[in-house]
Amino acid sequence: MTITEKQLQSVAGSELDGTRLARAIWAKVTEPADPVLGALMAALGPVEALSWLASATGQGRAESSMPAEFARLELKMRRRLVAAMQRWGARVQEIDVAREIKALESFDGVLVTPEDTAWPQGLNDLGFEAPACLWVRGKGDLGAITSNSVALVGARAATAYGEDVTMQLATGLVDRSFTVISGGAYGIDIAAHRATLAAQGITVAVLAGGADRLYPKGNAQALTRILDSGLIVSEHPPGSAPTRARFLTRNRLIAALARATVVVEAAWRSGAISTARHAAKLGRALGAVPGPVTSMMSAGCHSLLRDETAVCVTDADEVAELAGRIGENLAPATPRAPTLFDSLDGTEAAVFEALPVRKPATVVSVARTAGLSFEVTMATLARLELREIAVREGQAWRRNRD
Amino acid sequence: MTITEKQLQSVAGSELDGTRLARAIWAKVTEPADPVLGALMAALGPVEALSWLASATGQGRAESSMPAEFARLELKMRRRLVAAMQRWGARVQEIDVAREIKALESFDGVLVTPEDTAWPQGLNDLGFEAPACLWVRGKGDLGAITSNSVALVGARAATAYGEDVTMQLATGLVDRSFTVISGGAYGIDIAAHRATLAAQGITVAVLAGGADRLYPKGNAQALTRILDSGLIVSEHPPGSAPTRARFLTRNRLIAALARATVVVEAAWRSGAISTARHAAKLGRALGAVPGPVTSMMSAGCHSLLRDETAVCVTDADEVAELAGRIGENLAPATPRAPTLFDSLDGTEAAVFEALPVRKPATVVSVARTAGLSFEVTMATLARLELREIAVREGQAWRRNRD
Repeated sequence: MTITEKQLQSVAGSELDGTRLARAIWAKVTEPADPVLGALMAALGPVEALSWLASATGQGRAESSMPAEFARLELKMRRRLVAAMQRWGARVQEIDVAREIKALESFDGVLVTPEDTAWPQGLNDLGFEAPACLWVRGKGDLGAITSNSVALVGARAATAYGEDVTMQLATGLVDRSFTVISGGAYGIDIAAHRATLAAQGITVAVLAGGADRLYPKGNAQALTRILDSGLIVSEHPPGSAPTRARFLTRNRLIAALARATVVVEAAWRSGAISTARHAAKLGRALGAVPGPVTSMMSAGCHSLLRDETAVCVTDADEVAELAGRIGENLAPATPRAPTLFDSLDGTEAAVFEALPVRKPATVVSVARTAGLSFEVTMATLARLELREIAVREGQAWRRNRD
Repeated sequence: MTITEKQLQSVAGSELDGTRLARAIWAKVTEPADPVLGALMAALGPVEALSWLASATGQGRAESSMPAEFARLELKMRRRLVAAMQRWGARVQEIDVAREIKALESFDGVLVTPEDTAWPQGLNDLGFEAPACLWVRGKGDLGAITSNSVALVGARAATAYGEDVTMQLATGLVDRSFTVISGGAYGIDIAAHRATLAAQGITVAVLAGGADRLYPKGNAQALTRILDSGLIVSEHPPGSAPTRARFLTRNRLIAALARATVVVEAAWRSGAISTARHAAKLGRALGAVPGPVTSMMSAGCHSLLRDETAVCVTDADEVAELAGRIGENLAPATPRAPTLFDSLDGTEAAVFEALPVRKPATVVSVARTAGLSFEVTMATLARLELREIAVREGQAWRRNRD
């Protein structure tokens, strides 16, 4: 047993802090969508949870050493924690913290955690089944890029019809400034990525294996091209193999990241249908593209339409309407809440837009950006401060992030 | 002016009675779905309404001669009646009662009116817009035949896909003992009729012109074949031309006659969509067949699916489920209510089935038909009489039609 809380908290000389390292290790120790891990991290935080697990495993005891915080968890969850320790124990004993730090430092991308501003807020809707962290490769801020996104998913064994419709939808969504999310698989997925790239749009591929493994190999070239303008995302550490179970848990991430999910083609029982069920469960907008009733590859879509789980969508306009309509009901994914912004008058909105989110700016700088006089800017900032929209730090101002 | 009440009521030496003749004349004098006519007939009955119209028209006065029954009608309807008299007046003056009788007697079929048991109960859901009567050619009882029916409707400019699906649905519906109703037009309509005939099922064509005019001419051969096993129906007197307006009003009859309507292919604005809207308005089950989003001929179907006016149906099983599900909520269209029949035990059901609906039969006859002994039949009839299911007339028995 090589992990101690002290070890985790004293990660010096790198961008890592203990929480990030602990999350990366949790992702290695557990399989995704494990609600026991979610409950444990919610109770103790990633670092304390991990050092508790390491210590309890090392001492060969479980329930007797259960943290006091777990008294408030229901009995069933406590029992599941004991069972989970059996699963996690073997893996946690193999963890070498120094090696994990090295792996993270040598990763060709960024680790995004719930503590980061780039963490997509939609993932929090997964509750205890949210990922511990995400490995992200490519260009751009994951949260910003996915805040206005549609997932196009479907059968690997897509028909020419399905691929054509996917390309039309992806191209139309790029025109409407949507990010297109998919799973990188053969068929509908890669058609969505390819068409988005061709239209110079932004696409995000959420993989079931490590973000360094561009799987399947036949799509590796297209997935590599995504890195220039979009993102490759995985909840698994680099080097992880894509297993069958990981494809299914991966689908919940696609559904949670996108504002709307559209199933273009799907057989009765298929991965795309599982993504659709996740989207429905998460209250996300769900569309299905109809097709010939004679095509087995449209049977899954028709089944979603029949039971009214999905809305019938036939072009990019209808998909945009679907994503927009529901998007308005979602919690805003960016710090600037639309309702707040709507309450501002023209001058206030200009000043608000000119205000930095993080690093405060001087009144002169804000006035220049907003195209307003110093006096008007100062007066407006004072009003925004009263309404707790702007915050003053010394002589400088920024947006209030609360 | 040649019509008097006396004339109408003294139609002797034929199967006609005054009510039937008056309804036939009303169908000639008015255009269909005229709610003023519905209100007038509901207030006065067909005979009195017609003689009042003839008399008022002849005397060149309208409101002053309005029947007392009309005091309870709302002012708007009274005003509309005055306007309607202008429309009807010219036509009613051209009516020659003797010629109308002759036309009815020489009609190669039957006139079905709300007074007949063959009148489909579903038509009553049209309220004041119900037809005055129907001209019916072919084989079978219109009410019985349409009591378990599905309308398959769609584009004239159907695609091969649409015609294929129509044939599959029609064949499957015949297997499930449904009558297939359509409008006799090119495209989806005639594909539905043809496939039903090929599967030796029963099909009903509701025409927009007279039942003697097998329109369009290109379908005349197929429509003629319907006469051997199914029915050709029209609310217009023989000889009437199919006009554009009559196609639209005809659609309400298809929707009202069928337990469920299925749109197989339809452009955005089309006759099939008008039939669908009628079906939805009447609370009938409505299905739409999906198709390629690239096909303009499926755009109307997808629009019905998108706004959830229609349920997505892809095969005959799903159509049967649609028709069955809603059928259970409909008033039973036949004298034998399913719920009543379900409440009978085996012996009672056998006796009930052996009982004639109209002309009473002796106990011996009922026992023979039911395959039961005289004593058991007699005892069962007594039980059914107590439950007001069977009625005794002297020594003979029949079903209670109430």
